[in-house]
This record gives sequence, structure tokens and C-alpha cells, in this order.
Amino acid sequence: MGKLYVVGIGPGCYEDMTIRADRALRECDVVAGYTVYCDLLRPYFPDKEYLSTPMMGEEKRVAMALERAGKGQVVALVCSGDAGVYGMAGLAFELVQGDGDENVENVEIEVIPGVTAAISGAALLGAPLIHDFCLISLSDRLTPVNTIEKRLRAAAESDMVIVLYNPESKSRSGYLKRAAEILMETLEESRICGVARNIKRQDEKMEIMTLKELTEYPADMFCTVFIGNSSSELIDGHMITKRGYRSER
Amino acid sequence: MGKLYVVGIGPGCYEDMTIRADRALRECDVVAGYTVYCDLLRPYFPDKEYLSTPMMGEEKRVAMALERAGKGQVVALVCSGDAGVYGMAGLAFELVQGDGDENVENVEIEVIPGVTAAISGAALLGAPLIHDFCLISLSDRLTPVNTIEKRLRAAAESDMVIVLYNPESKSRSGYLKRAAEILMETLEESRICGVARNIKRQDEKMEIMTLKELTEYPADMFCTVFIGNSSSELIDGHMITKRGYRSER
Repeated sequence: MGKLYVVGIGPGCYEDMTIRADRALRECDVVAGYTVYCDLLRPYFPDKEYLSTPMMGEEKRVAMALERAGKGQVVALVCSGDAGVYGMAGLAFELVQGDGDENVENVEIEVIPGVTAAISGAALLGAPLIHDFCLISLSDRLTPVNTIEKRLRAAAESDMVIVLYNPESKSRSGYLKRAAEILMETLEESRICGVARNIKRQDEKMEIMTLKELTEYPADMFCTVFIGNSSSELIDGHMITKRGYRSER
Repeated sequence: MGKLYVVGIGPGCYEDMTIRADRALRECDVVAGYTVYCDLLRPYFPDKEYLSTPMMGEEKRVAMALERAGKGQVVALVCSGDAGVYGMAGLAFELVQGDGDENVENVEIEVIPGVTAAISGAALLGAPLIHDFCLISLSDRLTPVNTIEKRLRAAAESDMVIVLYNPESKSRSGYLKRAAEILMETLEESRICGVARNIKRQDEKMEIMTLKELTEYPADMFCTVFIGNSSSELIDGHMITKRGYRSER
């Protein structure tokens, strides 16, 4: 019986994957993933067969991985960050069911969790996620714009820290500006925000700014954006959300 | 100059920490943390000095760690899950500032991200976090109850997946029931929910149920609770939130 590991490799650096992910990659016969992640893994796991596919082909990629696992191979389907946060883990469970090929339907799926960009970006900025937060993708490729906007308003009104994934891309410009403007309906312009860019990769960078400044920030698909809650502060160059531990004194 | 690593060790199993966390623990002189986590790490890192403190003493623990780092030692302050999600990373930045001791104020802090229970619990349940979600702690030790309830309502009304941390403890019973009842003001009783218990530890268990059933669930502090959004489904025994990839066809 074949096995499919759906592996979150973290922000994009060998050191930031878990030991469990490393072991799954050592164990597998085949690595399936987006070209960029395959290239990143090849030096560490040179003896594997790589099935690399371009970015938008998620469904094809998962189907290819399942087909190989159905033939009895051990396959690692790799995602950046965590495989379960806007990743391919859900699709693997959906596609294995009702595939029609009994060998594929019997594939065992194991999701190996990884460090998603909210977590790795937060570590770079300081500690913005110490209290309740929500994670919202600004991509409207698969989500209606009014659903995204409703979530932004709900998060701001209930004082949660907000992490934005996919703030902009080449085909979607002005989305971060629009989101920041919606948040300013509720939040003050001076609310502290942070951007983590190219986390754990070349040209890694973090920047801290106000919500007003965020409206003019030139974001791209390599950015993860953080909007503080009412107790987030700039402390010694870092973005910190207070939990209130000092009240223990 | 001393160094303080604030290290998220993941759900509580050596394999689920990142390679970067493992390296920091190998490099350090001193490990500071809650007794349970120190006991977990000792077999893997036997040559270290351990400063273990009981659960509620977070501030004292961070101060002890900073004091040692101020003396020039390399200290790893360990947290379960991720150090920046309800963890001690924020407190480290707060306390280093204005400590009064110049050696402590010059300590370099590096946060090493880890897999928080939302991520590891999701992997156990299947893939409930494939789309926008929020993370809410039900502990009212440091947060007013009405703030918690406002966030629950906002999350339900905007159709986000919800992850609950600290659903119950010995001193706080009935909190999960109350939260589920608030969510049922907006969501149908049949909404799919999941509980991940003792993630990656002995007696690991996952259970899937309806929101109505969640009101009667005997949760404890070792549980992480997931409430699905309108597109979450039970697929072959797993809790899966659909992202909509099938529309690519």
C-alpha cells in the first residue's frame, strides 16, 4: 500500500523544517511540489525522484503524487509553510476519495505540520501574535471579495491581531491598500503594523509602520502582513503584542 | 554579550521541533522552561543546565533566563508549540527593555518559531485550516470575558474556521459549553467540529463531532478545539475545509 506524506517545509530554509519533515523526505521515493521548493530540497535530498510542477497546478500536482503512491511508492508532497494552511493537505484528502482506482483510494495520507508564514514572520518581527489573531488571505481567486472584506471588518471590530496572506501579486494590485482602508474604518491610522518579507530566504527583511503607512506599502507575494491589536506596541524595534503577564506581579 | 533563544518546541515530541530549534538547544548552556518541557528535553540534551519552574511562573522564568544571558551564557527559553503564540517571546522583549542591568539590556533575543497546536492539531484532524481562520483562547485569566465572547461572535458571523486554545481547565469549567452556545447563535447545530487531544504525546486522540455535541464534550487543558466554516466537511473520517481548488478544472 502506498503512502503519501503531505509535508509543510516551513518558510523555505532547510533549518526551519521539522525533524519529522526531514525524516519523511529521507524516507520517501518521490518528492512532488512546486518547482521552487523542489529546487530548494534537491541539495539536501539528492537521491529522490522529483516531480515538479508550476505554481497554479495544485490539483494536477496532488493527482500525480497520489498516482505514484497508488503504485506503492512513498511520496512526499511538499508545500511551503504548513501543508494545512492554504496548502494542499485538504485537496489530498478530497482527491483520494472517489478516485476510482482502488490502489489510490487505499493510499495512506499523513500530514506533517510545518511552520506557516504567520508564525515565522511573527518571530522575525518580534512577538505580534501573543494574543488572539486571525489569518486572512487577500487572494480573491477562490474567495468572493465581500467575504474577505466582511472578515477584515469582523477582525478589526473584535480587536484581533490580523495576519494577511497573499497581500498582492502581479495580477492583483491595490488589494493591500484596499484592505488597510477597510481596517481604518475601525482602527486608528497610527495602529502598529509589520511586514515580513522573504522570510528565512535571501533578502529577508522586516519593517514596522503605521496602518496609514501600510496603505502605501509596495507589497508583493513574498510578504506577510501583520496588523496589531489595541495592545500591540513598538518595543526596541520589534512589534510586540502584550498578553498581560505583568499583571501577575 | 549573552544570547537568549526563545524556542518553540512544537507539540511536545522531539521530532516535531524544527532543525533550527534542535541546533539552538545543542548550542545553549542553559535550558529554562516549564518543568514538563524540561523533562521532555533532558534525554535529548543531557549536558545542559536546566532551570525548570512551575506553570504559572512565566515572568519569573523569563527573568531567570535573561539574568543568565546577561552573565554571558547562551540560554534557551523553551515554550510548547510556538513561542510567539500565547508564549513567552513577547515577555522576553518587554523585560529586557528597562531591566536596569546593562548586561541584561544588551542580551540579544532570537525567537525560533515552532509548530503551534492549531497547526499540529489540524494535521491530526485532516485539513480544517485550509482557509481563513482565527485562534481564540478561552482563558479569561488575562482577558475580559466580553472580549472573548465578542471575538467568538465576530468569527462565526464572518464564516472563519475557529480554533480554541485553553478550552477548559480545572479552575475554569463550562467555558467550552458556553463558547459553543454563543457560536450556535449564528451557526447551525450540525456544524462540523474537531478536538485534538494530547497532540504527538501519549494517548494522542482526535474526535470529530457536531457543534451541538461539542457543548457536552469533556474538554481539558490538553485539548485544542476546531469549529469548521460553512465549507468544512467530514471526508473519510477527517475534518476538511475546502478551498475551492476543484474550480480550477
